[in-house]
This record gives sequence, structure tokens and C-alpha cells, in this order.
Amino acid sequence: MSERITVELGERSYPIVIGRGLVGGEFDLTQHLAGGDCLVVTNQTVAPLYLESLRRNLEGASIQSVSLEDGEAFKTLSAVETILDTLVESRANRDTSVVALGGGVVGDIAGFAAACYMRGVAFIQVPTTLLAQVDSSVGGKTGVNHPKGKNLIGAFHQPRIVLIDTDTLETLPDRELKAGLAEVIKYGAIADIEFFDWLEENIESLLSKEPGALAHAIKRSCELKAQVVAEDERESGRRAILNFGHTFGHAIEYCLGYGEWLHGEAVAAGMLMAGELSGIAEQQLARLRDLTERAGLPTRPPALGAAKLLDAMSLDKKALNKKLRFVLLRDLGDAYVTSDYSETGLQTICDAGS
Amino acid sequence: MSERITVELGERSYPIVIGRGLVGGEFDLTQHLAGGDCLVVTNQTVAPLYLESLRRNLEGASIQSVSLEDGEAFKTLSAVETILDTLVESRANRDTSVVALGGGVVGDIAGFAAACYMRGVAFIQVPTTLLAQVDSSVGGKTGVNHPKGKNLIGAFHQPRIVLIDTDTLETLPDRELKAGLAEVIKYGAIADIEFFDWLEENIESLLSKEPGALAHAIKRSCELKAQVVAEDERESGRRAILNFGHTFGHAIEYCLGYGEWLHGEAVAAGMLMAGELSGIAEQQLARLRDLTERAGLPTRPPALGAAKLLDAMSLDKKALNKKLRFVLLRDLGDAYVTSDYSETGLQTICDAGS
Repeated sequence: MSERITVELGERSYPIVIGRGLVGGEFDLTQHLAGGDCLVVTNQTVAPLYLESLRRNLEGASIQSVSLEDGEAFKTLSAVETILDTLVESRANRDTSVVALGGGVVGDIAGFAAACYMRGVAFIQVPTTLLAQVDSSVGGKTGVNHPKGKNLIGAFHQPRIVLIDTDTLETLPDRELKAGLAEVIKYGAIADIEFFDWLEENIESLLSKEPGALAHAIKRSCELKAQVVAEDERESGRRAILNFGHTFGHAIEYCLGYGEWLHGEAVAAGMLMAGELSGIAEQQLARLRDLTERAGLPTRPPALGAAKLLDAMSLDKKALNKKLRFVLLRDLGDAYVTSDYSETGLQTICDAGS
Repeated sequence: MSERITVELGERSYPIVIGRGLVGGEFDLTQHLAGGDCLVVTNQTVAPLYLESLRRNLEGASIQSVSLEDGEAFKTLSAVETILDTLVESRANRDTSVVALGGGVVGDIAGFAAACYMRGVAFIQVPTTLLAQVDSSVGGKTGVNHPKGKNLIGAFHQPRIVLIDTDTLETLPDRELKAGLAEVIKYGAIADIEFFDWLEENIESLLSKEPGALAHAIKRSCELKAQVVAEDERESGRRAILNFGHTFGHAIEYCLGYGEWLHGEAVAAGMLMAGELSGIAEQQLARLRDLTERAGLPTRPPALGAAKLLDAMSLDKKALNKKLRFVLLRDLGDAYVTSDYSETGLQTICDAGS
């Protein structure tokens, strides 16, 4: 049994299929390949767990695989080159498909390689972390980090299908599950107060990986992301609200060194910082803080000092005309993008590291 | 005085402006920048000739520049990284513009860097070779070579404007002028017999760089390319006719080592090979051979042997499902794409190297 959401992007529309046992064969992925061959990109943590299972699913196709080193530190142009080399070596043609099996890092790298190989070949996402399932696998953003900044090199390249097998979360470490919940909470905070209510009631079920609760949280998150992406594929406007907490979060990740805090952890602290900068009622801010805390996530930045954080933010790509832009909240459940904020407030918030 | 053609691609439409003295200031490029800053990408041959002139044109903007090594051998991912590093170092934002000043290699590299930086920033083409003016600067194909194959890594990224200053051809070496004429002849051969007639009458004027003749040849070539690109931006069908002679040509370049023959020279020989494989009347083939010869271009492949050429072609990206596809002629002036050709004919043609 599986559920299906469509990301509406005209001729680039694609389905997100959510369910149990999908990688192992409950869903036939072969029919979604562009041609008879594919390259599965995964990493050294995920490969021993799910690569064989995916290979069986794809039986009949000619399958190559590349296993990258695990971690944000390896999200580099050099990893993309490894994939491109494999595609060239196997003489892959325009009708090949690149399949990403893993978390957000694998999806971002593999997607960018698919975007660049022969100026774009088919791409399929099989996300195996909660973060990738609710966020990075949907919407077509691909890319890698530059030594001086996150996601500075990349492309928009939509997948043909996103296959979300919730069973893969069984092997996901708790810390990563929690990091994924940061993005789930984000959707409630920026666009759906009812979903936020539901999360307040069900956060313990999610933490204990209750399948029904996970499936609902993933589905609702994907629906909300799909709506926003359909309105503004290339982030010329509204799509930027998905970056709630991210300008702060990226700066935290950059200053600490990628991998010290997980992306979701940095975003969690960033959401609280953005919430505070929004000047919403203290009662609403408290709800956001409580839920984040119950999810086992940080609610304050590390003690880095304002100067370092602000400098890192000015390189963040969401900055426009050198003037910082933030996603702020009108109310809990209602976000907007602005460059109209209190400079002294920002300073105070960045200095409040613990 | 300048002429203007529009490449019709909906919201990605852009003008091609053709005339004399445009780089030096007859056309104000500043108004076409996305924001207040830009990075000019050029090479060590072109920089001393036209960089200062372009800088004056762009006065008022904040201008950085990168000067690459000259030649197809440097059309690599590493050159793209150099440009990306410069953009990052200068903290370029999403509203920056990348301006390519030079030939096809500079345009391809700079365009790909513009496509990748922050998932795509504004791009402007200022082509200074005939080849780039009539072909590579128009249509949005960008990319670099892989050690094992040409243009295997890239993106579709349309420029905002193509500024063709025909005065820049004054400093173009004769051999490169002739190589550019190969693509000009191609347009006549695939899509416009009247233009082919005109070329037969005016080839000597073009070779002696008569400004009026050059302007007409460039304008008509751009018009023909713009039409084809507007019909099929991403080369899912008809656009492939622009590759007439290119499957053979790329194989020749690859087998000889990039740079041994110029691209246009390889395409010239490739056009005759494709013409022969087409089985058109000997009288038509003779017209193509004569014009190519009068333009000072090779009409036969080098003596490489069929095996080597065929192997190189099977990696060429125009191959689909491992079955080779060729652009052939129904008649001179009328091309089509097919995978229906004589295998023994192909073998003979590839063996006929001189």
C-alpha cells in the first residue's frame, strides 16, 4: 500500500510515492527508468543496508553503482567527478538514469551529476533519511559545497520520481531522525498551523518511529513542499520561505565546520533565531521552542559570537544585493520573506549563543 | 549601426545584436547586467586585445576578470572551478553576471560556470571568433570536455544577450576564420539553399574579411540557428540537425587529440563524410566539396582507420541506445536525423582518410 503526491511542474511534473517495503519490491522502479541502464549512487553506510534490495527491484536493467564516502564533508565537486567518470567509463548515453539511494548529501551530489552529464539525464530519488524524504529529495535543488560556502555550486534538476520507503527509517540513527524532524516542524511553522498542532500531539510517536505517524508527517511535509515548489520552481519569490531558519542554520554549520552539527540541528536553532527576529508573540515563540526541544533539538546557536555568524551569513546565497534577507513569521504557521528587520535585534540574537 | 535578431524562448528570449564597434561602446552593455557587478571571463590571447575596451563599456559596474589559458585543451572542469573560486572570493551574489569575452571555448566554460554558480546566474556572450559568433554563443549549450569525450559535462543555460562586434574579427587568424566558415557553410547545407548559393558567390569576400559580407553571413547564420533553437531548445528532436558533420567531426578531434585540427576543420571533413553517407546526387556533393575547399578547409578525414573513428563515435553523446544517429541530407539545403544508414557505407567513408 502506498500513497502518491504529484509535484505539478508542467512537463517536469513527477510523483512522490510513499509507503512501506517499496525499495524491496512493493513498487517496480524499473518502469521509471529512462532506458535500459542506470547508475545507482549511494554511500558506504547505506550500501550494505539497501543496495542489494534496490538491485533486485531494478532487475532486468543494466545496473552500475558508485558508493561515496558518507558525510557532508564529501559533498564536493570531486564526488561529482567520480560519478561523471563512472558514467563516461560505462559509456552511458542520454537515456541513462542516475538513481540516488541515501540521504540528502547523496541526493544532492547524484542529482547534480545527473544535471551535468550530457547536459542532463534522468534522475530518480530514493531517499533513506527523514531529512531527505521530507525536504531535499523533493523540488529539484541539487549541488555541492564550495570550501567557502554551502551549496554554492549546483543546478535545478527535477527527479522523475521520488520513492520514499518509510521502512528505511528503521535503520536511521536517532540523532538523524531528530534532525529530520526539524524540517517537519518547519513546514508547520511556515505554512500550516493545523499540522503544527498535530505535531505537538504526535511528536513522541514520531520519535519512537511509529509507522503511521511517520507516514502522515512525511506525506504532509511533501504536500506542503510540493505546493510551494509548484508555485515557484526556481525560487524567484515564495519558494524562499522554505529557507526558514536556514540563513542562520547555514552560518552555524559553516562556522562550526560542516558535520559538527547536523543540518537539521543547525536549522532548529536557526528557526528559533528567526522566530525571535520576527517579533511574534512570546506565547507563539514558546510553542516553537517547546516543540523543538521535545524533538530533542537545539533551540539556541552555539557560542560563536555575532561577528562570525554575520560574516558567514553575508556569503550565504540567499543574500541579495549584499543586504541580508530573512524568512520571518507573521504568525506561527505564516511565513514571509523580507529584508526589513532590526539590525540591533539581529546582533543580539546572534550573540545569544550558549 | 547594428542589427538585432531575437531568439524566441518565452521568458528566456534574448537578443543577438550584430554590428561594428559594439564592444568599444557603440552599444551600452551595462543596461543588460543583472545587477551592479560582473565577472568577465576571457583568455590570454583575447584579454590584451579587447578587455580594456569592454571594461570601458561596462564603466560604472564593479568588474572582476579571469583570464584563462587559450585553447580547447583547457576546456576542463578545472577551468570552471577557477571561475567559481573567483565568484566565491568576490562574494558574488545571485544578481551577478558572468560575461564571456572570447571564442567558443571561453563561452562554453564561462556559461557552464554561470549555470552552476548558485544554481544559475545571468550570463552574457561577447564572442570574438567567427565560430563563436555564428554557432556556440547562440542557443544556450554550455559545458566542458571530459578527458574521454568532448562536451560530456555541461548545462543548457541561455545568455541574456549575445553581443557580436564584427570588428573583433580583424584580429582573428586566417585559420580560425576559415574554421568558422565551416559552420556558416553548414547552415546553408542543412537549411537554406539560397544562403548556400550566396556563399558560393561571396566566399572570397568572406575570406578577405569584407565587413558587409561578414555581417550578412553572421546574421543569416544566427537567424537560422535561432529558428532551430526556438523550435527545440533542449535538442529532443529537430535541433540535432545543427550537428551535421559533428558526429564525424568530434570523432576526428578526439582521435587526433583536441587542438590538432580546429573544430571547424573537423566539422568540414565531417560534413563531406555525412554528405557522402546521405547518398545525395554527386553533383550536389561536388558543390559542398568545392565550397568547402574554396574556404580552405579539409574535405577528407585524416588517415585514422575506420575502427578508431567508429569507436570514438560510439562514445559521442549523440548516440542513442548505443545505435549511432547521423544528420544526413535529403538534398543540399535539407537535413534530417536518422539511424537508418548503410553500415558498409559508413565503414568505407571512415576508411577513406587521406
